[in-house]
Amino acid sequence: MENTILEMQFAIDTFYFLVMGALVMWMAAGFSMLEAGLVRSKNTTEILTKNIGLFAIACTTYMIYGYDIMYGGGVILDGIEVIAKDATYAKPSDFFFQVVFVATAMSIVSGAVAERMKLFSFFAFAVVFTGIIYPMEGAWTWNGEAVFGLFTLGDYGFSDFAGSGIVHMAGAAAALAGVIVLGARRGKYNKDGSSNAIPGANMPMATLGTFILWMGWFGFNGGSVLAMASKESANAVAMVFLNTNAAAAGGVIAALLLVKILWGKADLTMALNGALAGLVAITAGPDTPTALEATLIGAIGGILVVFSISILDKTFKIDDPVGAISVHGVVGLWGLLAVPVTNDGVSFTGQLLGAATIFIWVFATSFALWLALKAVMGVRVSAEEEAEGVDISECGLHAYPEFTTK
Amino acid sequence: MENTILEMQFAIDTFYFLVMGALVMWMAAGFSMLEAGLVRSKNTTEILTKNIGLFAIACTTYMIYGYDIMYGGGVILDGIEVIAKDATYAKPSDFFFQVVFVATAMSIVSGAVAERMKLFSFFAFAVVFTGIIYPMEGAWTWNGEAVFGLFTLGDYGFSDFAGSGIVHMAGAAAALAGVIVLGARRGKYNKDGSSNAIPGANMPMATLGTFILWMGWFGFNGGSVLAMASKESANAVAMVFLNTNAAAAGGVIAALLLVKILWGKADLTMALNGALAGLVAITAGPDTPTALEATLIGAIGGILVVFSISILDKTFKIDDPVGAISVHGVVGLWGLLAVPVTNDGVSFTGQLLGAATIFIWVFATSFALWLALKAVMGVRVSAEEEAEGVDISECGLHAYPEFTTK
Amino acid sequence: MENTILEMQFAIDTFYFLVMGALVMWMAAGFSMLEAGLVRSKNTTEILTKNIGLFAIACTTYMIYGYDIMYGGGVILDGIEVIAKDATYAKPSDFFFQVVFVATAMSIVSGAVAERMKLFSFFAFAVVFTGIIYPMEGAWTWNGEAVFGLFTLGDYGFSDFAGSGIVHMAGAAAALAGVIVLGARRGKYNKDGSSNAIPGANMPMATLGTFILWMGWFGFNGGSVLAMASKESANAVAMVFLNTNAAAAGGVIAALLLVKILWGKADLTMALNGALAGLVAITAGPDTPTALEATLIGAIGGILVVFSISILDKTFKIDDPVGAISVHGVVGLWGLLAVPVTNDGVSFTGQLLGAATIFIWVFATSFALWLALKAVMGVRVSAEEEAEGVDISECGLHAYPEFTTK
Repeated sequence: MENTILEMQFAIDTFYFLVMGALVMWMAAGFSMLEAGLVRSKNTTEILTKNIGLFAIACTTYMIYGYDIMYGGGVILDGIEVIAKDATYAKPSDFFFQVVFVATAMSIVSGAVAERMKLFSFFAFAVVFTGIIYPMEGAWTWNGEAVFGLFTLGDYGFSDFAGSGIVHMAGAAAALAGVIVLGARRGKYNKDGSSNAIPGANMPMATLGTFILWMGWFGFNGGSVLAMASKESANAVAMVFLNTNAAAAGGVIAALLLVKILWGKADLTMALNGALAGLVAITAGPDTPTALEATLIGAIGGILVVFSISILDKTFKIDDPVGAISVHGVVGLWGLLAVPVTNDGVSFTGQLLGAATIFIWVFATSFALWLALKAVMGVRVSAEEEAEGVDISECGLHAYPEFTTK
Repeated sequence: MENTILEMQFAIDTFYFLVMGALVMWMAAGFSMLEAGLVRSKNTTEILTKNIGLFAIACTTYMIYGYDIMYGGGVILDGIEVIAKDATYAKPSDFFFQVVFVATAMSIVSGAVAERMKLFSFFAFAVVFTGIIYPMEGAWTWNGEAVFGLFTLGDYGFSDFAGSGIVHMAGAAAALAGVIVLGARRGKYNKDGSSNAIPGANMPMATLGTFILWMGWFGFNGGSVLAMASKESANAVAMVFLNTNAAAAGGVIAALLLVKILWGKADLTMALNGALAGLVAITAGPDTPTALEATLIGAIGGILVVFSISILDKTFKIDDPVGAISVHGVVGLWGLLAVPVTNDGVSFTGQLLGAATIFIWVFATSFALWLALKAVMGVRVSAEEEAEGVDISECGLHAYPEFTTK
Repeated sequence: MENTILEMQFAIDTFYFLVMGALVMWMAAGFSMLEAGLVRSKNTTEILTKNIGLFAIACTTYMIYGYDIMYGGGVILDGIEVIAKDATYAKPSDFFFQVVFVATAMSIVSGAVAERMKLFSFFAFAVVFTGIIYPMEGAWTWNGEAVFGLFTLGDYGFSDFAGSGIVHMAGAAAALAGVIVLGARRGKYNKDGSSNAIPGANMPMATLGTFILWMGWFGFNGGSVLAMASKESANAVAMVFLNTNAAAAGGVIAALLLVKILWGKADLTMALNGALAGLVAITAGPDTPTALEATLIGAIGGILVVFSISILDKTFKIDDPVGAISVHGVVGLWGLLAVPVTNDGVSFTGQLLGAATIFIWVFATSFALWLALKAVMGVRVSAEEEAEGVDISECGLHAYPEFTTK
């Protein structure tokens, strides 16, 4: 009898994991559509190929060795047939949920390096990032291992509920390294140092991508409670859903009002970035704030992202076509730092130490990897290929062959 | 032991609410894509901005005061930390489910006023509609409060299971008031009184939006059973899913056959409106019909919507670019009136009284609000801005900068 | 007390069925977007109309008589009010799950006959296919009935977990018959026998469709475990989710690498077909392989699909605009044949016998039906209509009126 109730619990927790995992997998479509909408039509096929390819690579490398590095056990190659006796859910459901996270981290990179990168160099980067770079910092944080055997982040009060730092800022750090190695797109910056806006080709696609990400984020944050089959965990998941939604809403409103005040118009791309910034900001701690606090945390994210995109572009000449470094990196850091405000068990020191550890590790290894790829395969397409668009040079296929006259 | 089973029940009901709520949230993407597909390309960015903005506003105002007006308790500002002792699910999951409903009602308005309205006047309307107008009629109906302290709709046998009237007709009433105050788009009606068709720019987007709404409607109607963790409620939810799907199918078939007979061709936009009409029609009572009855209720909705769109346009000169008033208003009323046919506990008198109460309240307050906004901020863009497209005047951004030669 | 636990079990299984069913319903949107992206813009409205129409038809005919043929009981016309006493889930949830499968089978056909078929002849085919042809072979396989009373496939060790053969190869067989009766699109093949590539109009749409199908497939395969509320079934569902994802990833990687080697570029449409091939391949047996085996089964599917599309087109002059016959037919057969490798209870003989039974039945009846429709209504539009595009001749509506200069 008691056993039967435990079986119910096992079933509910597993079912919950799978539904949340399916929502996170759906985020792969969100990133694809967002990025496809924000690049020019001549680079659209390539970014779609990049996104579906990186998702496939992430799922495969993480299965073969990434999950083992991050959580140990080596069960994957045995077919994940071993079910831990004390687990409250099926092991494959945990793997399925974890694997879509690594794909999310990798998706962040693809937008930032858009419109000038060699496709297979990107794929080579994806193999190492998803198989080693991400799993290492994941082991130090979510698995509680010591950083290079030196210190344990948990001892300093570090906490990152669903990955503002571990997933989003990590992806942004890898993206930043890539953008620095690659350089800006031709025509982005003028000789006098001013910057040209390069509008994306398809705003409904970009908006669809944002809504997909918003929806998928319920799985991302809601699934990170890691349990559903008790009153306590059910309450926690519900609060996380509510706060995730509230933060996204706060991000949209803040970004829209800010750009209306600054520029007199309601820039759609900033509203979209505001939504994503709200979501990234709440991800480090969606469980402890009230709904109103969550709205404010998201709103501050929405304000930060507008300024950050502008400053990275105009002041630092970091050419990030979709604003990924600002959305996931700058706002990811804000998300980490906001946790101690509503969560007594977390310290600013710990958050800073964790953020620094993640950033330094991911940025340094990514930078070295990008340089190695540059030396071995090259990372940038030729000037002619860039002018013609990478769709033709990398994929041999126009995204919209009948719509554009070029 | 008993407690543990109650915990399981609590977990299942909460999980169910959250999944259904995520599906309803997804409807925001559906309305966005539907409307973005049905307007011209020069007004696409603006309608996307409007949709993501209104969703964010609805989530925030309903949190701050709308939910309190509609269901009482004032728990939201306290962070929804108080969990009712006798609740069978987590309070935040109820709020999350309810908040996406108010956003749905508001989404209905955005399509009808497309292509000529000032964006921030719309947002101002959204603040009042989602914070006061909708919660008031929601309190009279789903919360069972007396209308202005005078009479209780439940006493007259009024029933609206998931909101054909409370959500959809209410949205349509607000939209109708807005369209009357705004007037038709320039170029829509000729001097001889005839009407020009203004085709939408992107049919795949409109179709995608319809499929998203169809999927999201399983959450909308299925979640309105409000419980899952018993044999009785599980059966009810399953029947609601089945009937929701059957009604949408009936709406598509009826609308397609009708336009084929009338016009000789299979007009896609009418097939899409047929699907939505079927969904709106079944929403007032998806629990009691058989699957065949549900198909017929949807089919009648599909027929009504074709005639209604034509009559509102050609006879009444109501310029509703996406047909929202017909789909959600006329068919919403049909949905209310169809309930007594299969549900003995519901009376025609009660349905008519409820429909009249909702319509008069929402139309009158919305009309006054639109007039007030017209006086204070203006509601309509200038003739030049309308000709150029509101994307530039309101958002400063083309939706498809590379596809159109204009 | 015992009863209460049984109620929980009933609720969990029903909830699981409904969520999986909603995911499979979502596949209808996936097929619509995939096919809309892969045809030319002048044939886009028609294929969207075809897809939403066939879904509606499938849901209605299967309700009226298809389900009864396949599983018996005739409960549908009674409103599915009868709940089997020993069922572990609500009967309507089973119907809802089954009905979206028949729609999937029918969706496969719509892409293959694109760009030259009469819309209402297609709909007439859909009525018979979804109401009789599919339910018959479904009864022989999943319901265990004898084929024409002669032999029972189960006796020969036939097994098709979620329908690589019963759904996908069946759809492809009907499609192949249609393509043969219809003939190739004008301009597809040159007098010297060479074949012209006809690129699709909207790659982001095609990619979105693929991601939707990928997501929906978790419901397709995951729901086919048919139970969730025990440790054993929860483990099975989790493994199925994981393997479904792994096979899709394997298909993408294999197809991308193969075309890179063959053609020097990363053809996006082949990456998409690779994903779908991986999914089709694993569908016959997603429960028994390890994750690595699932990846390989999908990868072989991804390789097969590239060669199959090329050979069907260039060698056999089968004009299938979206590659549906290769993806669902050739790879569906591979999926059936791969089952015995990891599942001892299944024999190659049984799989071949089952595949032959399904193919012969569906191909023969479909071929006869297409010929009958050709005689009665005609199946092909005129040369002028084909040149102008079927959007105008069949639907009277352009899909993208502002984007194309034609």
